[in-house]
Formats: sequence, C-alpha cells, structure tokens
Amino acid sequence: MSLPALTLNDLHFGPDGLIPVVTQDARTGAVLMQAYADRAAVERTLATREATYFSRSRGQQWIKGATSGHTQRIVDVRLDCDGDSVLYRVEQTGAACHTGEYSCFYRSMLDGQPEVAARNSGAESSAAENGLDGT
Amino acid sequence: MSLPALTLNDLHFGPDGLIPVVTQDARTGAVLMQAYADRAAVERTLATREATYFSRSRGQQWIKGATSGHTQRIVDVRLDCDGDSVLYRVEQTGAACHTGEYSCFYRSMLDGQPEVAARNSGAESSAAENGLDGT
Repeated sequence: MSLPALTLNDLHFGPDGLIPVVTQDARTGAVLMQAYADRAAVERTLATREATYFSRSRGQQWIKGATSGHTQRIVDVRLDCDGDSVLYRVEQTGAACHTGEYSCFYRSMLDGQPEVAARNSGAESSAAENGLDGT
Repeated sequence: MSLPALTLNDLHFGPDGLIPVVTQDARTGAVLMQAYADRAAVERTLATREATYFSRSRGQQWIKGATSGHTQRIVDVRLDCDGDSVLYRVEQTGAACHTGEYSCFYRSMLDGQPEVAARNSGAESSAAENGLDGT
C-alpha cells in the first residue's frame, strides 16, 4: 500500500493547539497511554524518533523518559482518517506509566470481572513474561 | 491482580463533558479508532456491552455500528492512571473506520517509509488474512 506523504499540515489540532496521541507498544500491541501533543511535539517526534508530547498539567513540552529513562523509540507515527488523532507506535523502555505499571490502562471498570485487567492478550502475556509488565 | 471496582465517578470528564476513548481490537491488538464519550455513553457501554460514544460533530450519542452494522462488542473497559482516558477493548465486526478501512489509523506520517503503514504487526497481519483489514 503506497500512500502519499503526510505533513504536519494534515493534522487538525484542537482550539487549545493540541491533538490527542495514543501510544502503542509496537512489539506487544498493548495500548500504553493516551496523552496530547502540540505541533512542535509532533514535529520533534518525527525528527528525532523520540516520543514527544505536550504536558497539559505542566504546560510544556514533555520528552517521554527524559527524566525517568523510560523512553519510547518511535517505530511509526500514524494519523487517523479525519486527521484529529495520532498514533505513536513505539519500542517502550521500562514502564510507560508513572505509577510503575507497564501500561497506564491497568484498571478495569467491569464489575464482577476482577480477572479481566490481569487477563492479558497473548501479546501482552508475552510482554509480562519478558518482564515488561509491572504487575 | 484484584482491583477495587471502579465507577463512573472515577472518570474525569473534560470541561465539555467528554472523555477521550481509545478503541482496541481485543483479538488482534490493533488500535482501531480514537473518539469521545460522555458520562451517559460510558454508562450505556458498561450496561449493554455495546461500544457507545458521543459524536462531537453530530452532538449526540453514537452507538457504534447502529447504522453500519459494524458493531463493537465490549470485552473490557479500562481506565487510565489519572482517570482522564478510557480504553474500550472490543470484538470488532467488519471495519471500524467509516472509510471502510479496518482501523482509522491507516496512514503513516513517516517519510521515506511508505511500507510502514502496510507492514502490520503479526497480530494485524492475521487480521488482514482473516479479511478484517480493508486494504
């Protein structure tokens, strides 16, 4: 499948200048986190292959792992159909979540199914076996 | 891993009453789409196990597949560490994207790597072999 090259102009940032970013472990398929990026963060991500975001709480650019060492090496950057969401596919070093969990999505909302959150997919089980899962 | 039951009160909706939702194919691990939900949409999703969103463009609740038949059966609903993002893990019927593509994230932004978007992970390749990929 050959696709025309996309540029930053294909991204539709919100009124706050941000676009949501979904981050996925390219090796395991696990969704690691959902954060935001501004234009400069996406530009830096594409240029350096280091996953870069914009921290809404700190109001500044956030290079993942710059202080924790839990960096995300970019494998691919994808844009969704209507250009208002970005997918970073990454090679995760260590834990993606600041809590120490492998993924930020470690809590299940389904009542009566406490096993669900721990019942990982085959890919995620492999990650756990490789010591990538913080559980 | 046993976790305390989470409720809708654990969700932090934005000033517009919405929370971003990442939707992942529970079988293949592929990220299918990123959309939004309001409180009622998440509540309906948990109650019916049908992935339900809030359409920002139409300003109303959106039951995935209600008109297209491309429904998403809920396998799990996860909440991220700070409660401001939700992950729907689903069994996708047909294509998730309105364009007919399996995933909305079918376009790569990486220049000089036109093969990236088509170079699926093993799981996604299996999906393509199963005819789930619209490409």
